[in-house]
Amino acid sequence: MSHASKISDGVCDQVTEFRLVHADCTWSRQTADCEHFEGRLSDAKIYESSSEDGVTWTVVSPIVFTYRVIQCERLLDASNDTLLFGHISNPTELQALKNNSKVMKRFIVIDETVNDLYGSQVAAYFKARGVTYKILPLPTTEENKSMTLVTRILEEVHKFGIDRRTEPIIAIGGGVCLDITGLAASLYRRRTPYIRVPTSLLAYIDASVGAKTGVNFANCKNKLGSYIPPVAAFLDKSFLGTLPRRHISNGMAEMLKMALMKHRGLFELLEKEGRLLLDSSFQPLKRIPENVHSDPASVSTRLAIETMLEELAPNLWEDDLDRLVDFGHIISPELEMKILPALLHGEAVNIDMAFMVYVARERGFLTEEEKRRIIVCMQSLDLPVWHSDCTLDLVLKSLTERLKHSGGFLRMPLPTALGKARIFNDTEESTVCQAFKKWCDEQCETTMKPE
Amino acid sequence: MSHASKISDGVCDQVTEFRLVHADCTWSRQTADCEHFEGRLSDAKIYESSSEDGVTWTVVSPIVFTYRVIQCERLLDASNDTLLFGHISNPTELQALKNNSKVMKRFIVIDETVNDLYGSQVAAYFKARGVTYKILPLPTTEENKSMTLVTRILEEVHKFGIDRRTEPIIAIGGGVCLDITGLAASLYRRRTPYIRVPTSLLAYIDASVGAKTGVNFANCKNKLGSYIPPVAAFLDKSFLGTLPRRHISNGMAEMLKMALMKHRGLFELLEKEGRLLLDSSFQPLKRIPENVHSDPASVSTRLAIETMLEELAPNLWEDDLDRLVDFGHIISPELEMKILPALLHGEAVNIDMAFMVYVARERGFLTEEEKRRIIVCMQSLDLPVWHSDCTLDLVLKSLTERLKHSGGFLRMPLPTALGKARIFNDTEESTVCQAFKKWCDEQCETTMKPE
Repeated sequence: MSHASKISDGVCDQVTEFRLVHADCTWSRQTADCEHFEGRLSDAKIYESSSEDGVTWTVVSPIVFTYRVIQCERLLDASNDTLLFGHISNPTELQALKNNSKVMKRFIVIDETVNDLYGSQVAAYFKARGVTYKILPLPTTEENKSMTLVTRILEEVHKFGIDRRTEPIIAIGGGVCLDITGLAASLYRRRTPYIRVPTSLLAYIDASVGAKTGVNFANCKNKLGSYIPPVAAFLDKSFLGTLPRRHISNGMAEMLKMALMKHRGLFELLEKEGRLLLDSSFQPLKRIPENVHSDPASVSTRLAIETMLEELAPNLWEDDLDRLVDFGHIISPELEMKILPALLHGEAVNIDMAFMVYVARERGFLTEEEKRRIIVCMQSLDLPVWHSDCTLDLVLKSLTERLKHSGGFLRMPLPTALGKARIFNDTEESTVCQAFKKWCDEQCETTMKPE
Repeated sequence: MSHASKISDGVCDQVTEFRLVHADCTWSRQTADCEHFEGRLSDAKIYESSSEDGVTWTVVSPIVFTYRVIQCERLLDASNDTLLFGHISNPTELQALKNNSKVMKRFIVIDETVNDLYGSQVAAYFKARGVTYKILPLPTTEENKSMTLVTRILEEVHKFGIDRRTEPIIAIGGGVCLDITGLAASLYRRRTPYIRVPTSLLAYIDASVGAKTGVNFANCKNKLGSYIPPVAAFLDKSFLGTLPRRHISNGMAEMLKMALMKHRGLFELLEKEGRLLLDSSFQPLKRIPENVHSDPASVSTRLAIETMLEELAPNLWEDDLDRLVDFGHIISPELEMKILPALLHGEAVNIDMAFMVYVARERGFLTEEEKRRIIVCMQSLDLPVWHSDCTLDLVLKSLTERLKHSGGFLRMPLPTALGKARIFNDTEESTVCQAFKKWCDEQCETTMKPE
């Protein structure tokens, strides 16, 4: 038998490791050194130890999440299979579903405003494909982001009736819509697959690609939720064409975040083409279709998603607290809460990032020229780089909160060059104060008296 | 580059596999054949393919659940560390927590009735250990098992304030209490650790050892929930001493289920000692403490848990629909719903199992003698083996429902010998009808006119 010694409470226990083997419909424990077994081996393990007081079993069981993120075009064209079948990667399963004569059902949660713009196209898609569907438009604003809307979705899903294994719930809208629908789906029958179709730039590059769902609770942002990824996210840039300009800027802040943390090429692209992307809402400028792999809109969104997925995939449940994607999210939650709804999320994030660039400069990680280029790039995207409500008190309070919720470390992501960053625990309060002073000296004026 | 071909929609895409490497605080994609890399490798992978329409990323990310099930004694003795630290397996972490001078906090949800019996002991435990605690007694009945109680818990947890990483929520009670607290914990801040302390026999061997949480919704049992296991379950048999006799029987039905499916030794132990265990509520009979590893109460509960863990650990999220633990759960949900609250869960399960034993006999899997021994054993545990409301109509309706929710297969677990079972998809309706007739002929009389 395979034994390992363990000290607990001064008592030395013998721990036996068991693997699990499946044969004849039955799972059996086998000691790890048993070489003769027939059947399928599980990735799960059970460790057992006994003492005079009783027995301890430790279960170690991996669950594998698999989800697809698909950047595509013409998602609502009836000839495009993606909306209906894009979540299925197994060709056999796909063929079986297509050959099945049973009428398919789809439940769609859509933001009210998005419904006004695209609802009839969504309906036409499912009608053309012979699918029984139900579209539920909801006012998915930050103020309504609560369990009440989740319950509303659950009631309607239950009334409509779906096959939990083959008929994913579809969410079409901004981040709030995707978050509440994701939470409803993860609760229904303990987990019902769902699909995210983002219609805002922020949701396109941020909410869509991760695993988080959530609602606000007790006046706290996203206090309740789950880490259940969608089976698929379908990203179609054409939705961005109807977004207000300010919301394009808003999304570009999170794109800039990934550029500053991880990708110099993306930063330089935003420096050069960012303004044009903002002006064009990421839509093709000419009638002639552009190459989806080389135009700035495609390249920038693709890089934003790839860099985001790199950071999220290995840390899907945020067990590691050292996260580069937290850049811009250290001071911004306090600031957002303080002056909601004056600032959009990406705007608050950008103010946070701008200040952190000053901290990085103060610590000598960035040159004056690098700092200038970053600030200029932000301004070219119409993003605020300073705010009078972002006081030194608020900054210091945010850092204290950060310490409390990050296991006693500051874990402050800071750029160390254009497109490179590290996480620091050793930023002194005096450095923060000096950076703050310089930030106000230089940016307050610019912000108060725009050129 | 490592490439694989994939056929989708008739288009042959190139798929590139990336693994993820962590260095300098940053995750980077590396093609799978890249042999030179420095840093930590993630278990997660990203697959990328592009076509003329766009790009598809497939994220494969494993999350490992680790939880402890501890059978112990004197859980509420202030000298016993288990309730406070039993969830921690890492000796360094344990030592750090014990040395920490910060006052610990614990939030405890307890069933009202259990609180009347044990509440003062629970309070005394935490008081003696210098822990700041809040005990929330709730009426955790099947009728109250809803989101309303979950929200109540969440509000109180939020008001009390806990460190999400180090201060697990504790649930003390029967299955309903453990299920609703588990759901509240899995929602709070997207996942807060929780601990299960079962006080009923049914929860001791069933709800405690798995990952399921849940509440009823829209008149359906456990329609909402999650698959988030507790960090630990602490099993102390002494709680069973205050259980009504009928609830001991109730729990023994699930124990018998595991015996019939997987363990002849456990079946023979229940045949021989089951009545005595029922009479003694699994408590020691003598003043002299028994050996916790050899008395029937310890051996039977230990075997029940070990066999249950064997089946649950490799299938924690129930992705595999072929589950031996579904034995007794095919007809019983319909029966339970029909005549609630006349039958307890284990009683309904036992009626289902008794009928299935007749099906197994009809199919020639069991001898007449084996069938007789099983029925006699059930009766010795005061469990019902027949019910007038379990009509042939209800049986056939249940099988139709089963087909619908199990991907088109019946997946009927049936004993094939004492302590052995397989899952069958080929049971004919005529066999079911004949088994039903024989079951009624033989058991209706016994049940109507008890000897």
